[in-house]
Parts: sequence; C-alpha cells; structure tokens
Amino acid sequence: MSIDLNCDLGESFGRWSLGHDAEVMRSITSANVACGFHAGDPDVMRQTVRLARDSGVAVGAHPGFPDLVGFGRRNMNATPQEVEDFVLYQLGALYAIASAEGVKLQHVKAHGALYNMAIRDRPLSDAIARAVAAFDRSLIFFGLPGTELLKAAEAAGLPPAAEGFADRAYEPDGSLTPRSRPGAVIHDPAEVVRRVVRMARDGIVTATNGVDIPMRVRTICTHGDTPGSHELTRLLREGLEREGIAVRAVGSA
Amino acid sequence: MSIDLNCDLGESFGRWSLGHDAEVMRSITSANVACGFHAGDPDVMRQTVRLARDSGVAVGAHPGFPDLVGFGRRNMNATPQEVEDFVLYQLGALYAIASAEGVKLQHVKAHGALYNMAIRDRPLSDAIARAVAAFDRSLIFFGLPGTELLKAAEAAGLPPAAEGFADRAYEPDGSLTPRSRPGAVIHDPAEVVRRVVRMARDGIVTATNGVDIPMRVRTICTHGDTPGSHELTRLLREGLEREGIAVRAVGSA
Amino acid sequence: MSIDLNCDLGESFGRWSLGHDAEVMRSITSANVACGFHAGDPDVMRQTVRLARDSGVAVGAHPGFPDLVGFGRRNMNATPQEVEDFVLYQLGALYAIASAEGVKLQHVKAHGALYNMAIRDRPLSDAIARAVAAFDRSLIFFGLPGTELLKAAEAAGLPPAAEGFADRAYEPDGSLTPRSRPGAVIHDPAEVVRRVVRMARDGIVTATNGVDIPMRVRTICTHGDTPGSHELTRLLREGLEREGIAVRAVGSA
Amino acid sequence: MSIDLNCDLGESFGRWSLGHDAEVMRSITSANVACGFHAGDPDVMRQTVRLARDSGVAVGAHPGFPDLVGFGRRNMNATPQEVEDFVLYQLGALYAIASAEGVKLQHVKAHGALYNMAIRDRPLSDAIARAVAAFDRSLIFFGLPGTELLKAAEAAGLPPAAEGFADRAYEPDGSLTPRSRPGAVIHDPAEVVRRVVRMARDGIVTATNGVDIPMRVRTICTHGDTPGSHELTRLLREGLEREGIAVRAVGSA
Repeated sequence: MSIDLNCDLGESFGRWSLGHDAEVMRSITSANVACGFHAGDPDVMRQTVRLARDSGVAVGAHPGFPDLVGFGRRNMNATPQEVEDFVLYQLGALYAIASAEGVKLQHVKAHGALYNMAIRDRPLSDAIARAVAAFDRSLIFFGLPGTELLKAAEAAGLPPAAEGFADRAYEPDGSLTPRSRPGAVIHDPAEVVRRVVRMARDGIVTATNGVDIPMRVRTICTHGDTPGSHELTRLLREGLEREGIAVRAVGSA
Repeated sequence: MSIDLNCDLGESFGRWSLGHDAEVMRSITSANVACGFHAGDPDVMRQTVRLARDSGVAVGAHPGFPDLVGFGRRNMNATPQEVEDFVLYQLGALYAIASAEGVKLQHVKAHGALYNMAIRDRPLSDAIARAVAAFDRSLIFFGLPGTELLKAAEAAGLPPAAEGFADRAYEPDGSLTPRSRPGAVIHDPAEVVRRVVRMARDGIVTATNGVDIPMRVRTICTHGDTPGSHELTRLLREGLEREGIAVRAVGSA
Repeated sequence: MSIDLNCDLGESFGRWSLGHDAEVMRSITSANVACGFHAGDPDVMRQTVRLARDSGVAVGAHPGFPDLVGFGRRNMNATPQEVEDFVLYQLGALYAIASAEGVKLQHVKAHGALYNMAIRDRPLSDAIARAVAAFDRSLIFFGLPGTELLKAAEAAGLPPAAEGFADRAYEPDGSLTPRSRPGAVIHDPAEVVRRVVRMARDGIVTATNGVDIPMRVRTICTHGDTPGSHELTRLLREGLEREGIAVRAVGSA
Repeated sequence: MSIDLNCDLGESFGRWSLGHDAEVMRSITSANVACGFHAGDPDVMRQTVRLARDSGVAVGAHPGFPDLVGFGRRNMNATPQEVEDFVLYQLGALYAIASAEGVKLQHVKAHGALYNMAIRDRPLSDAIARAVAAFDRSLIFFGLPGTELLKAAEAAGLPPAAEGFADRAYEPDGSLTPRSRPGAVIHDPAEVVRRVVRMARDGIVTATNGVDIPMRVRTICTHGDTPGSHELTRLLREGLEREGIAVRAVGSA
C-alpha cells in the first residue's frame, strides 16, 4: 500500500520568490514544476529540478496558460491546437533543463485554469494529452478521476494517475466543492490526514452530504505556497507513514 | 564539393507575419527556427518545422534574448548562467515541437544580439555551447569562423560549422564590416553569387581592402525577411549549382 | 448630416508591421490606437499618433486584454477590477504619448474579445466605463447600440457613440451575425456603401431576414488590416460624400 | 532644515509579493512606484498609490527597462528614442491610475539599470528628461548629483532633486562605490543615520578615503525589499527627527 504526494513548485519568477520549495521537498514525492508560462523562468526551473533531484523527489511538468500576471488562473479561450502547441513547448523546455541536470521527467499535470477547464472539456483535454503522447508516452498523466482529463489520457495511451486533493471537500458526484462555498477547504490537519489515509488505504472519501463515495487515487495534491501549507504537508506525510502507508513517487517501481 | 544555405525562419508571432518562409524554403537547406523569445510562438514553430520537413530542409534552433519588442537585436547584460538556461529552455521547446512532427534537430545558431555579443565574449559563447552540449552533443554549432563562438563549440566537443555571410563585406581580419559603414551590404546578386561560389569552392573571400583572405565555411547565411531577399537566395542556389557546387544541409551525410 | 469613420490602427509591434495605416488615415476620421497590451508598443503608438495628427484624424484609445500572442482576441476571465485597472493603464499610456505630440484624445473603444465580452456583460462594461470616467469624462465611448457597453457608458456619464459595422450582416435583433455563419461579412463594395449610407442617413439597416431595423449610429467601424480593406474604406468615404453625407470625426463640433 | 526620504515601492507583480510597502510607507515621504515594465501591474499600481495617499506619502513614477524577468536590472541597448517612448508610456500609465485615486504625481526616478546607465550617458538622460518634460514640467526629477541625469533634467527645464544614498559608500569623486567592492554597503544603522544627518544638515559625506566631500541632497534613497531594510528606514526617520531635521516630501511647500 502506497501513495504519492505531489505539489506545485518552482513558482518563483525572476526577482520574485514564491513558496517554500526546500521545506516542501522534504515531505513530497512528486514535484509539479512550472514551465515559464504562468510562473517559473529558466533559472528557477533549473534550481527547482536540482533541488528535487537532491531531495529524491520525482519531477513532472506543470504547463499552464500563457498568463504570467494572472498566474495561469484565468480561463482563456485558447483553441485546442494552441493548447497542444504550448503544452508541447513547455514540456520540451522543462525536459531540456531536467536532462542537463540528469533528471528524467516522470509526469505531467496541467496547471490552474488549464486543469480546471480541461476537466469538463474533452477537446481541451485531448489537446493536452496529444501533446504529451507526441512527446513521450511513458509520462504519467495526473488528473481528477472520472473527468475528461483522465479519459483523454487513457484514449491517448498515456498512463493515468488519479489525483486526490488533501484539503478539499468533495461533492457527492466526486467533483471538488468550489472554493467559493463554505467548507470547500479543510483546515484541520488531523482531519486532512484522516481523509487522505482513507483515500490511500480504502479508496473512499466522505462527500459533503456525509455519504462515503469511491475515490481511488494514486497521488495526492498538497500545497506549498500558503502560510502553514508546507507544515501541513509534513504532518500529512508523517500521518500516512504512521498508518503504514508508504509515501513514494507514482512512477517508482 | 558542397555548401549549406541557412536562413532565419519562423519569425512570425501571433497575428504578425514576417518573412517569406514558403518561398525561402525552396532554396535553402537549413532553417534556423526562432524559439519564442525574440520571435516565433508555439504555433508558428510547429508550422515552420512542418514546412521545413515537407521542403526537405534541415531544422535548427535559433535561440535569442528574451526581448520580443526588440526582436532580440538589443544587447542585454544577461549573466552566462542566465544565457545558458534560456538557451537550454528554447532548445528543448523546439525539440519537443520538432519531435511531434517527426523531425530531428540538426543544428543551433544563436540569434541577433546574442550571436553578435558572443562572437567577442568567451564566457557568453561558453554558456551557449554548454547549454547545447548538455542537451545533445551531436548538434552542429554555427558561428563566424575564428571567433569565440566556434572556439567555445570546439571546447565543448560540439561539431562546429563555420558560417559565411552571402551579402556582407568582410574586413581584412575576417570580421564582418559593421552595417553602419558604406558598402557593408552587397546588393548586386551577381556579385553575391560570385563571392559565395569562391567561399564554397576556394575558401577565399575578398576583404574591403581588396586583399583575398581565407574564409573556409560550411554554411552560408542568407536572408528572407527583406524585400527581394528570397529572390536573392534563389539566385544564389542556382548560381552555386550552375558552378557544380552541391547545395545540401550541413548535417547530411 | 454627417458620419464618422473609425478604424483600428497602430497594430504593429516591434519588428512586425501590420495594416496599411498611412493609406487608411486618408479616408477615416477617427483612429482607434492600440495601447501595447494586444498590439502596439510605445514607439508604434507615437508614430501612429503623429500620423493621425498630420492626417487630421482624431485619436482614441483602443485598450485590449493583456494577450499579445492572441492579439487580444481570446476571451479571458479577468475580474472587473482587473479590467478597470488595465484599461486605465492603457488609457494613460496613450494619453501621455498623445500629449507629447500635441494631440488630445477624443474617444475610447474596447478591442477584440474585451469589446465582444463587454457587449453582453454589464459588470465588465461598467469596469471599462468606470476607468474612462475616472480619467476624463469628455472621452466619447464607442459601442454597439443597445448593448451593455453603451448602457454602461451612459450610466457613467460618458458621451456615447453608437457604432455601426460597415461590412457586417445584422441579425433581426440588431446584433452582429457571428463571423462563423455564411454571409456574416459583406464583400461587395457597392453593397457596403449602400448599407452605410442608409445607416448614416436614415438610421436603418436591413437584417439577415430581409427586414429593415433601426440602426442609428454616429460612427462606422471599417478595417485596415486585411488585403483590400483600406481600398474599401476609401470607396466608402467617396460613396458617403457623393451622397452628401459629411465624413467627420465624432468629436468635431 | 528638511529632507525627503524616498523608496522604491509597488514592486509586486500578479501573484508575487515583494517588499514591505505598508511598513515602509510609515517612515518615508516619497514613493517611487514601479510602472509595469520591470515590476508592478495595474492592480498593484493602484493599491500602491492608494496606500501612499492614505499614508500621506507623495507619489512618483519609477520607470524601468521592459525586462520583467530581469527586474529592470540588466543593461539593455535601447535607443534614446525607445527610452523616451517607454518612459512616457509608463509615466502616463501611472498618471492615469494616480488620477483615478485623486493623487497628483510629484516626481520621477529612473529605475535600476536605466538609472545606472543614464548617470554616465547624456543622450539616455536627455531621452528620459525629454519624456518627463513633454508630459509635465513640474515633475521633480531625482538623480545622483553631478551626473548626466541631473544635467539633463536642468537642460530640459525640470526641477531637479539631488539624491543621496542612505546606506552606500561614496568614492572621493562623489560617485557610489560599486556594490562589488567591500564596504560598498553600510550595515550599521547608527552609522547610516549619522551619515544621512550630515548630508541633510551639512551637505557633506565622508568618502571611502576618509575625506569629507560636498554632498548636497534634497532626498535620500532608502530600501524596503531586503530583510530588515524597512526597520532601518524607520530608525533613519527617527534619527533625523531627533536631530531636528524635518522629514517631508521634496515637493511639499
């Protein structure tokens, strides 16, 4: 029994620092590295890859919309062809930097608005999956289970990894409770640990209506850019290991 | 006896078109493809790679400074580490797009101010060469002969390709006559053809003082973005072939 | 009886030229000048303002989404506050450059996706109008009649100018026929002139169902960036003047 | 007897925060607000102007090179015309946002590499001064005394304000000791206060060779973006006031 802990990292840019990458790297097993469109720059990417390598953390690409000032969080009406091309572009950019540091990419996870739009938009998901498949069919494709993202990955012949969210509430249909609703984010560390342990061990999570729903996941999304978030990630790892659940990268044997 | 003809291509961006890529592709053998920093965007890059492939033209990366509004033509005081990282980034981005189109990269040629600064700046040239060598040691490295660019390539173990300039005057020391001086650019097509034939066949060019100097080159830089330039490139190819000089990509067997 | 002819201009960027500004300036009376977010750069803006001034053409700001590679044509999910701030930013930038050239701004017209989204989105329209009103309440606000854009302008106390489209078909409800539908764009110059004359003189246009609908407008949008478009604009001006309709800037006495 | 304390502020960008603007605003009297080219975005600019207004701090424009990832700190080979135009652009952008918040601009201070290059480059300084003078001749122009920056301001008819540096060592000729040399930055708060008091009261500073040189200044540059820097600024203000030196904006009566 094992689970992967992933986190968005390398989100600094030029003079601006963001997140607690060094601390987070001690607890996670997969790093989603920003590729320069919504965050990250070539120097930051190299530092992040190096830090991941030295921390024994697997590296994945975290491509986003070309919207630096909006941090890739604003929906953009890009065509599937545009999305396919800029995902490929970002993927290659990170691949080159990772190669120079002796690191092989493990996975791909779309960022922010791209992820959220793709969940419900099959042509967009197909575009992302097509870019990844054209580049390297062994890259593991992260996504919310049951959504267009993972369906597209499977159709493209990519190994999918269903992703759970450590501190988010789930609707009865398995979707995430929108952040605008009260209770969407779970702040109690003990509660977060309990829920993740259940997802990891039993493939079950309790939805907002109190009913247990299936939530079989291979990786858990944690956060590192808000105050206290890397502390939560540390507690999460400890809690999982205490329960005898191995924490290891989704691509490790 | 053979020579390669190279040209900067894929310099459109978003809504903006530049150059006569389709026409130029009929005459050249190596395309230097802009990688998104000074020109080009992921969609333009894909179109350009596809066009090159379908035209039997070899593809190379043409990385530049991150200066879109200045088209990579303004000197920038970036550190060698910054340059190494953004060359690597651009190289990987083009590699991914080329791979998706079934195209292998043949060469690398620095663009604009990056090329011109590196010619005289060994740490900068080393940074570029280091990025290329870290990515793929088989990539052919273009540069003005006798300059820091090619010395850096050799030191990094990269196959160098000395580059001649079709329509530019040369100083007695083998450097290019600065564009600000009268006579720096040769406009007469017949004269351009004669000079390139001599460089290709005899490894000699006549400098501004009338003296013949050695100029042994494997590839000739032509232009496609000014009025009439692609016509000149066509005449150049015809002139070379008429003289029995094969025009083929520098990386072809 | 008079009408204004407006056109988007100053859409070049750095090394890239777009449009036939010099030719178009001879026929129009109001220039919508790009402000650097979707097109235009500070140098292009100055050249454009100077050209407008020397051609006797009134200058207006043409703010767009911060999406250079998408030319401001992609919908973006920016908040009203973000939109208000970046409209204000672009407005001030053009104001400064125009002032340095002795030119007073006459009007504001939102660009591309910003215009199209605002038409149906009152909070977005209010954000644009709020930015303009905060800057200068005498600026004339262009927009499709009957839409949220003009309602927002009126609510903000800005002088509105209803805008007709020279070469576009209209639906029975007064909206533009989407470009994706056949017949959305009218290519016959004589037909374009006839329709604009009727809008200018009678305040009427024939909708796609053959029924005449009211279309009272003070300015007509023409194009300058497609082949032949500036020629059409010239014919349009001649046609209007032949019918005794004065062509003059919307802000002229 | 009075002195102005200025500081670079509004250097956040999108998701990225930088500096301790709220704390610094309590101690300074003039804010140099980034205008979106090297830092700042329209929303950040508005927040910064509002904060300055509510803190009784005067607002000035802080235009820089268009180099976001380099934070405007890398020399760029822009032409004087390009510099003039992008200074004007940034100036207008901030003016519009300040106007919307009921704030009048007090001054202009070039940022980073633009400031440092202009100090020794008269055409560059003239370009900056020309942009400011074309916009508003009452704007106070900050610069290192005795340099091309202030000479250009005077030639352009702009009110100059000689600027001293709180924590920097001076060479015998009045230039700043390069940061690369030991002792270039003075870290002892008491020493910083003593030096600034002498500049403010006596117009004298001790150079690196131990000799007192004239350093008559109207404003003192402090920092807010490094750890402890806003604390130093607070101590500086207290130290000045303790010595009976009024701390007030350079443009106040």
